[in-house]
Amino acid sequence: MEVKARAPGKIILAGEHAVVHGSTAVASSIDLYTYVSLRFSTPSSDNVESLRLQLNDAALEFSWPISRIRDAFPESVAPLFSKPTSCSVECARSIAALVEDLNIPEAKIGLASGVSAFLWLYSSIQGFKPATVVISSELPLGSGLGSSAAFCVALAAALLAVTDSVSLDVNHQGWVSFGEKELDLVNKWAFEGEKIIHGKPSGIDNSVSAYGNIISFKSGNLTRMKANTSLKMLITNTKVGRNTKALVAGVSERMMRHQDAMAFVFSAVDSISKELTTTLQSPTPDELSVTEMEEKVGELMEMNQGLLQSMGVSHATIETVLRTTLKYKLASKLTGAGGGGCVLTLLPTLLSGTVVDKVIAELESSGFQCFIAGVGGNGVEISFEHSS
Amino acid sequence: MEVKARAPGKIILAGEHAVVHGSTAVASSIDLYTYVSLRFSTPSSDNVESLRLQLNDAALEFSWPISRIRDAFPESVAPLFSKPTSCSVECARSIAALVEDLNIPEAKIGLASGVSAFLWLYSSIQGFKPATVVISSELPLGSGLGSSAAFCVALAAALLAVTDSVSLDVNHQGWVSFGEKELDLVNKWAFEGEKIIHGKPSGIDNSVSAYGNIISFKSGNLTRMKANTSLKMLITNTKVGRNTKALVAGVSERMMRHQDAMAFVFSAVDSISKELTTTLQSPTPDELSVTEMEEKVGELMEMNQGLLQSMGVSHATIETVLRTTLKYKLASKLTGAGGGGCVLTLLPTLLSGTVVDKVIAELESSGFQCFIAGVGGNGVEISFEHSS
Repeated sequence: MEVKARAPGKIILAGEHAVVHGSTAVASSIDLYTYVSLRFSTPSSDNVESLRLQLNDAALEFSWPISRIRDAFPESVAPLFSKPTSCSVECARSIAALVEDLNIPEAKIGLASGVSAFLWLYSSIQGFKPATVVISSELPLGSGLGSSAAFCVALAAALLAVTDSVSLDVNHQGWVSFGEKELDLVNKWAFEGEKIIHGKPSGIDNSVSAYGNIISFKSGNLTRMKANTSLKMLITNTKVGRNTKALVAGVSERMMRHQDAMAFVFSAVDSISKELTTTLQSPTPDELSVTEMEEKVGELMEMNQGLLQSMGVSHATIETVLRTTLKYKLASKLTGAGGGGCVLTLLPTLLSGTVVDKVIAELESSGFQCFIAGVGGNGVEISFEHSS
Repeated sequence: MEVKARAPGKIILAGEHAVVHGSTAVASSIDLYTYVSLRFSTPSSDNVESLRLQLNDAALEFSWPISRIRDAFPESVAPLFSKPTSCSVECARSIAALVEDLNIPEAKIGLASGVSAFLWLYSSIQGFKPATVVISSELPLGSGLGSSAAFCVALAAALLAVTDSVSLDVNHQGWVSFGEKELDLVNKWAFEGEKIIHGKPSGIDNSVSAYGNIISFKSGNLTRMKANTSLKMLITNTKVGRNTKALVAGVSERMMRHQDAMAFVFSAVDSISKELTTTLQSPTPDELSVTEMEEKVGELMEMNQGLLQSMGVSHATIETVLRTTLKYKLASKLTGAGGGGCVLTLLPTLLSGTVVDKVIAELESSGFQCFIAGVGGNGVEISFEHSS
């Protein structure tokens, strides 16, 4: 039997940066996924019992003899999958040694921390069983769409799906969701993985990927909500790498220099985030009000973008995207840290496919990468595949 | 003897649109001028006594027999140049008839109201003396740089300079300024001219053009101040015509739809305008602090631009200018109504001429028109030229 999990990426609909200064922010899942497939090795299938990890998008494959992994985790006797725990300093050291031995090529060294997270989650949840794990993703890496969180969530979900802590119907056809308590467990394990990758993650990305839908957050408190509407976004990846820490620090410095003005800017963002959550949750009975809702969301995005620019986190490539989409009267805003990264453009329901194609062609001719994504769908899901 | 007057254009440094909703705005003069030359005809120089108006930039020339003008203003016996008065409805009708007879070509019909203002100011201040008035300007028309106000101010100044209400040394070489009381009189007459051109002008443009320097305004109250620094701006005319009324209405509508967020946006602009006036008035003893001051001004401009975008008054051409100047790390903001019009880019003192040339070349290759202007110089000035 093969267990498959898919976990969605995320976008920040409103409130990035301002959330650091106490404003509300709103994140949502998108229907672009990271997929994890897990298949335990049958006793006869391998000469040496090993754990294999296949990263399809990076065209990398790793394999560890189970005995080596067991040596790296000496204190683990029985896996405690029901109790998410952090990787200790000693354990992190052992894992780092295992990963170093892989000699990952320099150009793909950014994946090393993901491999470490994999080893920690796998061993902690499944112990030392030989298996093959295959990863593939529709999400660009390191572009602020929550690819690492989706990886950790899908991995934790696949691993937990075959433990006693989860009761799913293995004969169900197609994708199936976890129960609430099980999602909580997946989310907590994924957060432990995110800590290995990012050091101090906010926990937003893994929560959105695990639970899906829309989450507003303010001062560290998350509020989950369900959108009453289905929005479509064009996501443009400028492919410009960002230094999130430097961008966050830049906003704080600007705040120190212009305290009064920036306080008002952050308050304006807070109002926008609140209005957005209200708008997305209100029932929309007919097409006319769908259009009205979309106009409102577009206007709030445009306003939020202006405020982000006044915080100084825009970038020439972001301006290029804005200018291009403005020509087609489409509302856009950066999503995440800014300074490059991704830009969201609302695609209204009634917008013709021809226009969408034109916009995408123009953006791609500037060297950008475009995705179309639905906003606010399900979180992580599982599928069991039985070989016939 | 020829009397020459020159009156500066203006830019809005901060607060446009937000000022309509109670925020502070800051305007300043620029060293781009409209010139008016006035020469009374000597009795022998014309067969028929006439008033001639020459608009150099439009390549138009008009002439009226003095008798026709006298007929249009039947109630005027003696000119009351010391008492600025509004053009009455009947008088406006007579003037309109005079202007209609000129058969101004369709493409230049926008100048008609300026000709009307000319006829009113000339007759009210100088009565019915035959003369030749020549107008030329460094300011693009209808681009938000206060070209009509500069025209009215320069015209009123030239006309008043040769009345008893003004005492100037006619033998002074070069440009000379008016006294305070005389400036007040020039400014009031210019405002009457602006009313003929614009219907309901705010009075900011003519005040900046008359008094020069920097003027902050809030809720209809003007505060004149002197900058302690000399800033240089690159002014880019996008050549896209705007509908100021529609733009102002658009912001008000957005305010009604998103009252909380927009109130914070306007408050942020108010803080920016106040900080800007404080910064511009503070003494800058050395080059280091000039650079610091320029960085502060640039940052405030960038913040203001973001807030203007959140009000929805940007335009694709403005975005193009922003994107171009951002590449060179130069701060820009739209000035005036937005939706096209002009964009300001701060040129720091230490910026190399090569970079300036590059930026200008790139902007002009996009079809824009560039000017370099000093900020906050003198207001209207007079020069007497004696033919040798």
